[in-house]
Amino acid sequence: MARMHNPAGLSPIVAGAWRLAEWGWTPQQRLAWIEANLDIGVSSFDHADIYGGYAVESLFGEALALQPALRQRIQLVSKCGIKLVSPARPGHAVKHYDTSAAHVRTSVEQSLRNLRTDHLDLLLIHRPDCLLDPDELADTFEALRREGKVRYFGVSNFTPSQLAPLHRRIALATTQIECSPLHLDPLHDGTLDQCVDLGLRPMIWSPLAGGRVFTGQDERAQRVRGTVQAMAHELGIAPITLISAWLRRHPSQPLPILGSRRIDVAREAMAALNVTLDAQQWYRLWEAAAGREVP
Amino acid sequence: MARMHNPAGLSPIVAGAWRLAEWGWTPQQRLAWIEANLDIGVSSFDHADIYGGYAVESLFGEALALQPALRQRIQLVSKCGIKLVSPARPGHAVKHYDTSAAHVRTSVEQSLRNLRTDHLDLLLIHRPDCLLDPDELADTFEALRREGKVRYFGVSNFTPSQLAPLHRRIALATTQIECSPLHLDPLHDGTLDQCVDLGLRPMIWSPLAGGRVFTGQDERAQRVRGTVQAMAHELGIAPITLISAWLRRHPSQPLPILGSRRIDVAREAMAALNVTLDAQQWYRLWEAAAGREVP
Amino acid sequence: MARMHNPAGLSPIVAGAWRLAEWGWTPQQRLAWIEANLDIGVSSFDHADIYGGYAVESLFGEALALQPALRQRIQLVSKCGIKLVSPARPGHAVKHYDTSAAHVRTSVEQSLRNLRTDHLDLLLIHRPDCLLDPDELADTFEALRREGKVRYFGVSNFTPSQLAPLHRRIALATTQIECSPLHLDPLHDGTLDQCVDLGLRPMIWSPLAGGRVFTGQDERAQRVRGTVQAMAHELGIAPITLISAWLRRHPSQPLPILGSRRIDVAREAMAALNVTLDAQQWYRLWEAAAGREVP
Repeated sequence: MARMHNPAGLSPIVAGAWRLAEWGWTPQQRLAWIEANLDIGVSSFDHADIYGGYAVESLFGEALALQPALRQRIQLVSKCGIKLVSPARPGHAVKHYDTSAAHVRTSVEQSLRNLRTDHLDLLLIHRPDCLLDPDELADTFEALRREGKVRYFGVSNFTPSQLAPLHRRIALATTQIECSPLHLDPLHDGTLDQCVDLGLRPMIWSPLAGGRVFTGQDERAQRVRGTVQAMAHELGIAPITLISAWLRRHPSQPLPILGSRRIDVAREAMAALNVTLDAQQWYRLWEAAAGREVP
Repeated sequence: MARMHNPAGLSPIVAGAWRLAEWGWTPQQRLAWIEANLDIGVSSFDHADIYGGYAVESLFGEALALQPALRQRIQLVSKCGIKLVSPARPGHAVKHYDTSAAHVRTSVEQSLRNLRTDHLDLLLIHRPDCLLDPDELADTFEALRREGKVRYFGVSNFTPSQLAPLHRRIALATTQIECSPLHLDPLHDGTLDQCVDLGLRPMIWSPLAGGRVFTGQDERAQRVRGTVQAMAHELGIAPITLISAWLRRHPSQPLPILGSRRIDVAREAMAALNVTLDAQQWYRLWEAAAGREVP
Repeated sequence: MARMHNPAGLSPIVAGAWRLAEWGWTPQQRLAWIEANLDIGVSSFDHADIYGGYAVESLFGEALALQPALRQRIQLVSKCGIKLVSPARPGHAVKHYDTSAAHVRTSVEQSLRNLRTDHLDLLLIHRPDCLLDPDELADTFEALRREGKVRYFGVSNFTPSQLAPLHRRIALATTQIECSPLHLDPLHDGTLDQCVDLGLRPMIWSPLAGGRVFTGQDERAQRVRGTVQAMAHELGIAPITLISAWLRRHPSQPLPILGSRRIDVAREAMAALNVTLDAQQWYRLWEAAAGREVP
């Protein structure tokens, strides 16, 4: 078994708060969602400064404040580095990235205030910034760690050549990447090879391709959907369980992020912990996803 | 001269047994082919579990059993990791890969029985398996080595990012890749750069592009053929000698595999040991192959 | 601030001698150009054996001989490795590369004679040669350094996988690459990531895309030109100053090469030393160059 690490102690399935602002919930409803996730073993919550137009972290923090003792049972993940053109940031005229010490520090302080916590368990750089200075950023990360504000650090959407210089300067805990039966690139472009090599368990965003696995009308989505449904039926599991098991089967031991308001989605994903696909099953879905058999 | 290694002691030209089952030979004819190769210095024989629909290894082993003393004069190379849909493997419903400890071990034991030998000189993982766990595989390789069943290990058709994690865990002896005047990719995509960097002498499959160098009717094949014939004529050597010399000229010191029933093909390839192309000659053929001069 | 190195002591802007032969100047005019560059802080001069059909180095050396004391105030950069089909080299029938010990040594000796100097400050391999043997080349570089003929070494137009094997054998001082608002590839393909990681400050050729930033009629060039002019106007600087500041803003701390006969071009580039773009400004030009906002 590959020697993979999960230093930030993330749960096997992570709850994505991306769309929390769209759900129109009261603080009590948000708290109930947090508790329902915790009840089924989903204890890590994925945020970013920009989610919901810079609004999601505060909505979550407001709910958490109703039950502060929950904080010690959950892992809070946030991100920074993107500067959106947004009514909430009138100084931004062009969407851009900023991974300077000043911005990372300002963003973390704001995330802590919004989430009503004294520390993040994990901070990710949201996108690869052409201007990223790995020496400066590693120094910033070290300082934030010393001050107790952030426990672990990672990146998101970085190529291997973008991740490596930073990881050589400060040990990263994870990288968050897109992967699904409709997005196979990281299986073949070196991204997941690097994760295995370095022992970094990746977090997976859009594991259901933003729902297109179930709703897409193109030929590829239909083909994938047919195979997912057939295999799930044969195995007596839910389609989301199958896809989660398929992702988790990779030797990098990925951590899928599910961002649904319906707790059943998280429950079906968690059920993948009891399913291990064999190689032939895994490649059956890969073949449907790639549209061809392996060479 | 680049410090390249050939720990498995492969001969400069390797005999490919890929098509052995198609030749319809008696055991005595197969033995004669083995001996004829040996007579001209081709002492390494390239196999895979799947060649000939899982049949070639047995045919070779049957011939070798007629003259067991040959075993100590030859190097036996085999591969595993591909599971074909085949009458010989009724359990396979989907072509897939499997590099688990269980399958690698089972496949090696079967190769030893088929080839009627107590050890392989070299075992290659045939294709890059998305599910390859380099920690587990390195452990498996170490165990097979300790048990005396396999002396050296390598991979085939791996990208640099797929090879590196495994090589970091256990020193590989070679990588087998496709390269020819009609397949220049490894010269430019980092594959051969990595070989030079790590000192791995690559084995080259399809050095004549499956014969298309001599038979292809597309514009590129015709252009290459014209240049090969002109240069071979000027140098007073056979076209196969020229192409072999062209491949061997790379600083990674490649080991071409020729898979013909005609011993003249291997002889003409071996004649490349007495030919050293200069840089201008080498780029003359590259220019014909690429269809443009160098930048 | 990224820990970048500039061991050869190159000036922040480098003067490119590429077109020197086309300017039709007298030795005195060439000397005046050298002195005018020096007067504004441009002390490094970029050559290659092949520039001007193997003629530029001699023209420069002839001018330098008029004022030999200048030698100690300037850095001479040259390159080798390309063999042009040229009346000056009747033995070349095919444009090709040669990075053998014999050719590198011969080319350096010729560059020293042409430039009328006893040493080069920096020697670059001009193009990635498929036949490059990093062990042999590192030995050649070491010998040239010991003999006092070349102080520092680098490469040009190499991919990361081509640079790494050589750099592992002998510490390189720089890599010279093409980059401009009309050529963004090195920002995203790992080339500049590697520079940052290894601390190599890259030299940048064609920072104005061979003038196309100012003259190109395609949609992309027009869009870039519009943004360059608007931003330069807003900042009260010259367009060349803006583009130079944009390139220099990358954490690899690039050294742009300007190859104009007009000293104003070099002066405007040097003015970039007093301009620091913020992240939003930098991405504004990136967005115009890429034709889309960042993801």
